[in-house]
Amino acid sequence: MAKHKTGIKPVLFTNVTISDSFWAPRIKTNREQTIPASYRQCRDTGRIEALKLQWKPGQEPVPHVFWDSDIAKWLEAASYSLAAHPDPELEAQVDGIIDLLEKMQQPDGYLNSHFIAVEPHKRWTNLRDSHEMYCAGHLIEAAVAHFQATGKRSLLNVLCRYADHIAKMFGTGPGQKRGYCGHEEIELALVKLYRATGEEKYLRQAQYFIDERGRQPHYFDDEARARGDDPAKYWAKTHAYTQSHIPVREQTEVTGHAVRGMYLCSAMADLAGELGDESLKAACERIWQHLTTKRMYVTAGIGSSGQNEGYTFDYDLPNETAYAETCAQIGLVFWAHRMLHLDCDSQYADVMERALYNSVISGVSLDGAKFFYENPLASTGQHHRQDWFGCACCPPNLARILASLGNYIYSEGENEAVVHLYVQSSGKLNVGGREVTLTQQTDYPWDGNVRIKVGLKQPQTFALKLRWPGWCSKASGLSVNNEQYRAEMVRGNYLRIEREWIDGDAVELRLGMEIDRVYANPKVRMNCGRVALQRGPMLYCLEGADNGVDLNALALPRDEELKARFDASLLGGVVTLLGQGIRASADGELYSFKRPTPCGVPLKAIPYCVWDNRAPGEMLVWMWEA
Amino acid sequence: MAKHKTGIKPVLFTNVTISDSFWAPRIKTNREQTIPASYRQCRDTGRIEALKLQWKPGQEPVPHVFWDSDIAKWLEAASYSLAAHPDPELEAQVDGIIDLLEKMQQPDGYLNSHFIAVEPHKRWTNLRDSHEMYCAGHLIEAAVAHFQATGKRSLLNVLCRYADHIAKMFGTGPGQKRGYCGHEEIELALVKLYRATGEEKYLRQAQYFIDERGRQPHYFDDEARARGDDPAKYWAKTHAYTQSHIPVREQTEVTGHAVRGMYLCSAMADLAGELGDESLKAACERIWQHLTTKRMYVTAGIGSSGQNEGYTFDYDLPNETAYAETCAQIGLVFWAHRMLHLDCDSQYADVMERALYNSVISGVSLDGAKFFYENPLASTGQHHRQDWFGCACCPPNLARILASLGNYIYSEGENEAVVHLYVQSSGKLNVGGREVTLTQQTDYPWDGNVRIKVGLKQPQTFALKLRWPGWCSKASGLSVNNEQYRAEMVRGNYLRIEREWIDGDAVELRLGMEIDRVYANPKVRMNCGRVALQRGPMLYCLEGADNGVDLNALALPRDEELKARFDASLLGGVVTLLGQGIRASADGELYSFKRPTPCGVPLKAIPYCVWDNRAPGEMLVWMWEA
Repeated sequence: MAKHKTGIKPVLFTNVTISDSFWAPRIKTNREQTIPASYRQCRDTGRIEALKLQWKPGQEPVPHVFWDSDIAKWLEAASYSLAAHPDPELEAQVDGIIDLLEKMQQPDGYLNSHFIAVEPHKRWTNLRDSHEMYCAGHLIEAAVAHFQATGKRSLLNVLCRYADHIAKMFGTGPGQKRGYCGHEEIELALVKLYRATGEEKYLRQAQYFIDERGRQPHYFDDEARARGDDPAKYWAKTHAYTQSHIPVREQTEVTGHAVRGMYLCSAMADLAGELGDESLKAACERIWQHLTTKRMYVTAGIGSSGQNEGYTFDYDLPNETAYAETCAQIGLVFWAHRMLHLDCDSQYADVMERALYNSVISGVSLDGAKFFYENPLASTGQHHRQDWFGCACCPPNLARILASLGNYIYSEGENEAVVHLYVQSSGKLNVGGREVTLTQQTDYPWDGNVRIKVGLKQPQTFALKLRWPGWCSKASGLSVNNEQYRAEMVRGNYLRIEREWIDGDAVELRLGMEIDRVYANPKVRMNCGRVALQRGPMLYCLEGADNGVDLNALALPRDEELKARFDASLLGGVVTLLGQGIRASADGELYSFKRPTPCGVPLKAIPYCVWDNRAPGEMLVWMWEA
Repeated sequence: MAKHKTGIKPVLFTNVTISDSFWAPRIKTNREQTIPASYRQCRDTGRIEALKLQWKPGQEPVPHVFWDSDIAKWLEAASYSLAAHPDPELEAQVDGIIDLLEKMQQPDGYLNSHFIAVEPHKRWTNLRDSHEMYCAGHLIEAAVAHFQATGKRSLLNVLCRYADHIAKMFGTGPGQKRGYCGHEEIELALVKLYRATGEEKYLRQAQYFIDERGRQPHYFDDEARARGDDPAKYWAKTHAYTQSHIPVREQTEVTGHAVRGMYLCSAMADLAGELGDESLKAACERIWQHLTTKRMYVTAGIGSSGQNEGYTFDYDLPNETAYAETCAQIGLVFWAHRMLHLDCDSQYADVMERALYNSVISGVSLDGAKFFYENPLASTGQHHRQDWFGCACCPPNLARILASLGNYIYSEGENEAVVHLYVQSSGKLNVGGREVTLTQQTDYPWDGNVRIKVGLKQPQTFALKLRWPGWCSKASGLSVNNEQYRAEMVRGNYLRIEREWIDGDAVELRLGMEIDRVYANPKVRMNCGRVALQRGPMLYCLEGADNGVDLNALALPRDEELKARFDASLLGGVVTLLGQGIRASADGELYSFKRPTPCGVPLKAIPYCVWDNRAPGEMLVWMWEA
């Protein structure tokens, strides 16, 4: 196996302690509120009961084909949480579910509550629509997480048996079906399973799924005919919906269902790294370019349409009807993080950061109890977070990414230590076999000053690489041990400081954090003449609670200088942006030959990610610039 | 019966000859292309065949519940056309269909091709959804038109028998059902039947339908229960969809399906006039105010959403997804025309004119062969007129309004002659029992100068009333026989010239026709910072064919003075608006902290109603103002 070309790998969240004022409270809320609430929802909606296989025809609710994936993502989140915070009650809940899964497993290794209890005759007959391997993939991720968190092999053994069953069923060998899943997920999960067990067969199985995808004759069509269905009557109309319209290496654009595409690309990036597969890497890079230069919201939301939970056409980024599913952005973080480890290029970290601070964390309320499935960039007040969803992918997906957020901050290599995200935290890195502790002290994302203390047992020469954020174009500075330092800016926009480090060395990075006006390319037709506000990694929005009704009637004058002010009492403590706007009077008729009279009004913007945490009302990211 | 309060009534199109360059060619195209094409469509899609009642179970196509209405509207259009232009072939087609209808009629008078041939046991069991009386209403309108055009009673007799059957079935008497139709139409048709036959029972039946609508216990709920359906599971969720959530006199807002609402209001206005019913008139006025001040597009398009083919909430007027069904605007013209005859107030004629010149006539291509169902105010190029529709209400609706367009220009009274629309035409009016000919010479809508010649057998004293258009705020003038005249502006914004008229007298009205910028109330959130262009009654738009791609990247500077230029070779001859716009460069990234670079570009706007008559492309009504 080839190594990661960059020679760096992520520092696991178990070696990272986050202590900031932004993420730490959210991780605590996730542990104390979201994870228990998700368990209750899984229990109360029958998802846990379904694992007992006692469903009888006519009984409601009918276990759904993707219920196992909700259980799996909860198990994964709970495992991450247990790794950082032992909790006997939570561990008992986890063990209880694992026990049900063990008992559920069929002699041949098969494991799916719907297809065992409800439609046993339909097992593996509709990979296109039935989410069987998708559920398997999430269970594998859960098993790996549980093994790494607790050292227990209970769930891992169950899922190795299931993975072996799947590997026996699907492949190019004699008697095997040449299938793959309509909802990608198992591919990246099998790479994780390979890494956790060292069993190369799982990597090869992931490779098979990636290589087979989109080949002709098309498996989903053959499979439909075998079921007696007409492939031409496929409800989604195109295999681009599942990114299987052509082989993955030939793909150049994001297509179809956004979450599926992100999970696929994550696996492609994994395999590109593990196998040194340049053609997979090149495909990833093409698709990445397309996504980030033509189809991504300024919040890093992706997948603009609810119709296909995915993409429409280039630059079609409607604000009010934006789908931008929370899970899609989480998938984008997964993919960006993997790309970052193929090429230590800050463009990947920039998008990862943009998603995390904006359209991922907007998915959950400050109290951890309510969730957005869609993350629009404008609202007339019709959008509100909900307790749970029939299709409940987002809440446990948020739970697992928050519980493992430490994963995304640091990377370690033979001769280098890399900081991707500035978060007050402490990371224990393994640099050339020795432990290096990096301790960040910062008020990020509210302030751009970051002090990084290097902890070492003995002096060591290595390169400390610090990401230069894409948002930062303003006067900034770097010092080492209080002396100005001219660091080399290496390819990929990382500052590189190579020296012999001594315990207690301190690096200070001062990122000029100003209020920037963001303009969309005029091809984004809905944002012409409009402006968004950004400060550091945070996108801002206007909310009715601060600015009254008819937010579109508010314009930001071109020359207005907004001020940033930290408000400790607002929404958990946020920097607000204050200034004078112009409000067009709504007193007139519906249509008039007279331009509506403008008058000055105070204007207050809050970070996008905390909107809809007060009384329901309007919200607007792209405001009119006058 | 009370007379129309205003004492005026419309001059029938049969007494009006239109000879202008705007409508006359369209009426000719309607006669030569649209009416024959609609006949072929009715024939080729099986709609005419369905009248033979030979459908057998399993046969495709299944005659649809509202197919008869398409036939009816075609008959009505063809009859109007015959009245103005005898055409033996067309008359033979009309008589052929009437023959089929006569044969189709059941002994009890019942007449509906679907419910006779396909579901005879379901007759009158689902007034809410089945369009039975809607079809009856259109057939009645056709019968009246046919009778008036040809003097033949063949179809009229059939429809009188059907109307009698309906009157026997529905009413408050013993043994009668207290029902009314889910899709209003029969109410206004019965008023027409009353006027054509003099039979007051038809007026009373219309009155019954209007009075009964929306009462509790709700007929549609009772009827659903009688069918074994749960009324709570009504697919449209609310009786506001059919304007039957409350009695009509209690209604204050437009609700639900836009076409239905317009046909209902038209009947309410008819009855208000016929019966002198002030409470009905007051309800009409309230609903009118709501529609025209909160829910109408600048093109007079109404019903913003495709979801319910109707309304959403106040000021919710999205441009690209605007539904604004052609039929809804035609219904609005019907209603406005009736309101105008209750109160000779130009606000009604203004809306009527706005609809006719913009979002009604946009429904048909210049060649008369393609139709818009939806009339959006912006397009990325995804909207194109089509040959026909499965639900084909719009094409024959356009055919009938164009064939009878003369109806909307003049009104006549005991002592007055009224001009509502300025169209080069000649109208024969009956003023106090004597024939008065008004002959308009004008280049309207391209020019605001109108010369009206009065033709008389002998001198006669009466008031000539000329509408002062709402769009006209600029310096204008009026002269009689070449001498300046200071006319009284009477209530409702009509210039009143009372004098003894002599044959050959000439009035000249000079309406200053300038290019106006239109601004929407800032509560219309999608149009903030944007501007539309209007000249006379015509709304303008940018099209890709003239202005290239990315129309939203084009801005109109505040101080740009646009020029109007008539282009005889363009789109049948139109006034274009020319000037310099600013185009924001699309060369940059997807998002940038730098405002896109602007550069000057020529800008050309065409009348909205003629868009999509060249190569497919973008279109935009509300452009950004810089």
